[in-house]
Amino acid sequence: MVFGFVNKENMSLLTDLYELTMAQVYFKKGMNKTAIFDFYTRPVENRSYLVNAGLEQLIYYLENVRFTQEDIDYLRTTGFFEEDFLSYLKDFKFTGNLYAVEEGEFIFPNEPVVQVEAPIIEAQIIETFLINTLQHPILVATKAMRCYSVARGTVLVDFGLRRAHGTDAGMKAARASFIGGFAGTSNVLAGKEYGIPIFGTMAHSFILAHIDEIKAFKDFAEIYPENSILLVDTFDSIKGVYNAVKAIKELGMKHFKGIRLDSGDLLKLSKEARKILDSEGFKDAKIIASGGINEYKIKELLDKGAPIDGWGVGTELVVSADLPYLDCAYKLVEYDGRPVMKFSSKKKTLPHKKQIFRIYEDGVFKKDIITRFDEDIEKGKPLLKKVIENGKVVYKLPKLTEIQKKAIENFSKLPEELKDITKTVHLYPEVSSSIQKTVKELERKYLNGELQ
Amino acid sequence: MVFGFVNKENMSLLTDLYELTMAQVYFKKGMNKTAIFDFYTRPVENRSYLVNAGLEQLIYYLENVRFTQEDIDYLRTTGFFEEDFLSYLKDFKFTGNLYAVEEGEFIFPNEPVVQVEAPIIEAQIIETFLINTLQHPILVATKAMRCYSVARGTVLVDFGLRRAHGTDAGMKAARASFIGGFAGTSNVLAGKEYGIPIFGTMAHSFILAHIDEIKAFKDFAEIYPENSILLVDTFDSIKGVYNAVKAIKELGMKHFKGIRLDSGDLLKLSKEARKILDSEGFKDAKIIASGGINEYKIKELLDKGAPIDGWGVGTELVVSADLPYLDCAYKLVEYDGRPVMKFSSKKKTLPHKKQIFRIYEDGVFKKDIITRFDEDIEKGKPLLKKVIENGKVVYKLPKLTEIQKKAIENFSKLPEELKDITKTVHLYPEVSSSIQKTVKELERKYLNGELQ
Repeated sequence: MVFGFVNKENMSLLTDLYELTMAQVYFKKGMNKTAIFDFYTRPVENRSYLVNAGLEQLIYYLENVRFTQEDIDYLRTTGFFEEDFLSYLKDFKFTGNLYAVEEGEFIFPNEPVVQVEAPIIEAQIIETFLINTLQHPILVATKAMRCYSVARGTVLVDFGLRRAHGTDAGMKAARASFIGGFAGTSNVLAGKEYGIPIFGTMAHSFILAHIDEIKAFKDFAEIYPENSILLVDTFDSIKGVYNAVKAIKELGMKHFKGIRLDSGDLLKLSKEARKILDSEGFKDAKIIASGGINEYKIKELLDKGAPIDGWGVGTELVVSADLPYLDCAYKLVEYDGRPVMKFSSKKKTLPHKKQIFRIYEDGVFKKDIITRFDEDIEKGKPLLKKVIENGKVVYKLPKLTEIQKKAIENFSKLPEELKDITKTVHLYPEVSSSIQKTVKELERKYLNGELQ
Repeated sequence: MVFGFVNKENMSLLTDLYELTMAQVYFKKGMNKTAIFDFYTRPVENRSYLVNAGLEQLIYYLENVRFTQEDIDYLRTTGFFEEDFLSYLKDFKFTGNLYAVEEGEFIFPNEPVVQVEAPIIEAQIIETFLINTLQHPILVATKAMRCYSVARGTVLVDFGLRRAHGTDAGMKAARASFIGGFAGTSNVLAGKEYGIPIFGTMAHSFILAHIDEIKAFKDFAEIYPENSILLVDTFDSIKGVYNAVKAIKELGMKHFKGIRLDSGDLLKLSKEARKILDSEGFKDAKIIASGGINEYKIKELLDKGAPIDGWGVGTELVVSADLPYLDCAYKLVEYDGRPVMKFSSKKKTLPHKKQIFRIYEDGVFKKDIITRFDEDIEKGKPLLKKVIENGKVVYKLPKLTEIQKKAIENFSKLPEELKDITKTVHLYPEVSSSIQKTVKELERKYLNGELQ
C-alpha cells in the first residue's frame, strides 16, 4: 500500500511528464542557454487584487530539488529517457536566479510575481511545482484578506482543514490565511510548523455523547475554565445559550469565554444570544459564528448589526469557493538574450526580463509600471527582489507576523474602489515604452513571416 | 525555514484543535465508550451521483496514526493539555473498526460512505484527517466519471497537477481521476507511486526557445519519433498544423502521433486540422485538445462532431471547479449503545450503526435502503465492508485498474436520468422502518424535553 505523501525526497518527480521530455530534447540537442520565465496571473472575476503568498515553499523547493536514485530508476522504466539524460538528472540542481514579489504584497494582472532566470532545462523542469506551490496560497491569502477587509476588527480563524483539498492544502491554507489577516487556525500541525496561534471550540458529537447538553457544557468548562467556547446549536440554539449560561453558573464560574452558533439565522440568533448573555451578567462572553461563512456573509451580518465577535471561516476560505483557481501561467519571455512572446488567441505574453515599479501618491497606491529589468523609474518602489542567486538563497524571509503586518498595511493603502468586495476592478499595470517597442517589433516580425 | 510537508510522522497533528481538547475532556472524565460515527454527504448541485474514492489513504492513516515525542512536546507548549492526557496520547493508536463503501462504488446523499466504530476518543481524534482525505478524491473521481460519461471512448488524461491545491491534491487527483475512467496523468510522481500511465506533449516555451516552429517540432520528433504530440497553437494553430506536417515529412517519418490544440475555437480548428492531416497522409495522427476542458465542453464538442481523439483535462478536473467542495459530515450516530441524532436546523442525522443495501432491477440500479447494521434485506447487495477490525486491516484493496473497471461497470448500471450531466437528480436512499422508529422516538423525547 502506498500513501502518496510528497516530501523532500520525491518532490522532484511531482512534475508534468512534458517538463522532463522537453528537458531531454534540450539536453540531447545541446540547447541549454539562459531562459527567463515569468509567473503571472491573468484578470479574474470577483477579485480586484491578489495577495502574494507561497514564496517560502518555493524557495525550499528550489534549494532542495534533486533526483534520487529511486527517481532515476523509475524514470528509466518509463521508456521515455536515455542513460545520458538520466545521468544529467542525477546531478541536477537549481543553479539559477529567482526574483520574486515578497509575500504580503498585493499583485495585479499580468505582473511577473516570480521571475526565474536559469539554464532552460532547469527553468523548465521546475515549472509544474512552482505553479502548484504558488497558486493555492495566493488564492487563500486573497480570500482571507477579503474577509479581513469587512470584519471590522472581529476575529477570524481558519476552520477549513477538513474541507481543504488534501493535506498540503490544509497546511498552505493555514499559513496563507494568517498572511491575509487571520488570527489563527484550528490546524494543530500548522500551529506547530508555522507558529500560528491555534483555536478550537467543540463539536456536536461532544454534546450528543453526553446524556444532556448542560452536562456536556459543564464537563468541558470544568477542564477548560478559561477556554470554553460552548457550541449551542445541537438541539436548539437559543435553548443552547440558556443551557450554556446554566452550566457556567452551576459551576460557579465568573468567566465565560463564549458560545458558538453554527447554523440557522445568524443575525437573529446572535442578537438573541447577546441579549441573554448580557442579561445573565456575561457581557464579556463572545459570540462566534461558523457554518458556510465567507466575506459576503460577514459583511452582510455586520452591516445589519449582528453582535458577532469572531468567525470560524472554513470551506469557502480554503477552497476559495467563488474562485477555486487562478488563471495563471509560467511563460518564457527571453531565451539566450532574445526576447520572445506567444501570440496564440488572446493570451499574449510580455517579452524581456522585467521589473515592477509601484507608484504611490499621497500614501495611496496609484499604479504599477512594468519595465525592462535595467530601467529605473524615479520614485517607484521596485517589487521584484532577488531571492536566489546562482542557486543560493540570498533573501531572508520575514517572520509570518511581519508578512501579515505588511499585508494589512498594503491593504490600507489601496484606493477605495479596489477595497470594495462587491465590485471587480481590474487594475492593469502600465507597460514601459521599451517593452512596448519590443512587442511591436516581434509582432511586425511575426506578420512578415520572420517568426513562424 | 519550514516547508510544511505532511508525512507519516507528523500526520497525527493534522487535526483540528477541538478534536484534541474534546479528547482530553473525555479522558479526564473517564468517558471512552464505543462510538459510531458516519461520514456521509448531503445533496449537492450539479451531481446526481458521487464516485467513492480515497479509501486507500484513509486506511494508511488509521493503521499508522501515532503521536511522536515531538508532537507531544509541541502539544505541551500550547497550554491546552495536561500530562496524564499527553501520556495517553503517547500510546495512542486506532483500535476500532472501519466499515466502508469500496472505492469505485457510486454513492448518494445521506449514505454512510464510511462508518467508524471505536472508543470515542479515537473516533473523535481521527475526524479531521478522515474528512480531509476523503472529500477531494470523491470530488475528482466524480468529475472524472462525468467527463468519461460523455467522452465516447476518446482518451482522457489528467493535466491538472499545476493547478491542484497543493502537492497532495495533485497526487490525489491523479489517482481519483484514474478511478473515474481516465487513461492516465501528466503527474510523474503519481505514475511512480500508483502505477498510473503517464502522458505528455510539449509546452509553448519549447517552441519559443527555438528560432522557428518547424525546427522546434523537428528537434522534438527526432528524440521522440514514436511519441511526439506537437503543440501547434503558439503562433497560429492552422499554420502550426502545416508546420507540424512539414517537420514530420522533412524528417522522413512515416509515423506521426499527433497534435495538440490548446486555445481558440476547438470545433473549427479540430475540423480544419483533421482535414489537413488526412490530406497530407496522416490519417492516424491524433488530435488532442486542452485548455479549460470540462465535461460540458467535451460533450458539446463531440455532439457537434469535433474530430478530437483525446483530452488534457486540467484545472476544472482537479479543483472540481463547478463543485469545489462537498457538503459532507462526520457525525456521531450512536454512543455506548445509545442511538443519537442532531436536530439543529435542517441538518438532521440518522441514528444507529448501519448498513446500506443496493437494489438492482434487471441489471439496472434501482435504489438503496439504509438499515440498522444487523437487518437483512433480501436480494440487496450490502455496500459497507469491514475494512479494519480492532485496528487491524482485514480488507484487501483491489488494484487501481480493478477499481476503475468497477466504477465504469457501475456507471453502466445507472438509470439514464442519473447519467445526464445536464440535469441534477437527487436519489435519496430509503430508510428502514427500524431506523425511522428510532428517529420518531428521539424526536418525541426531544419534544418532551427528555433530550435537551
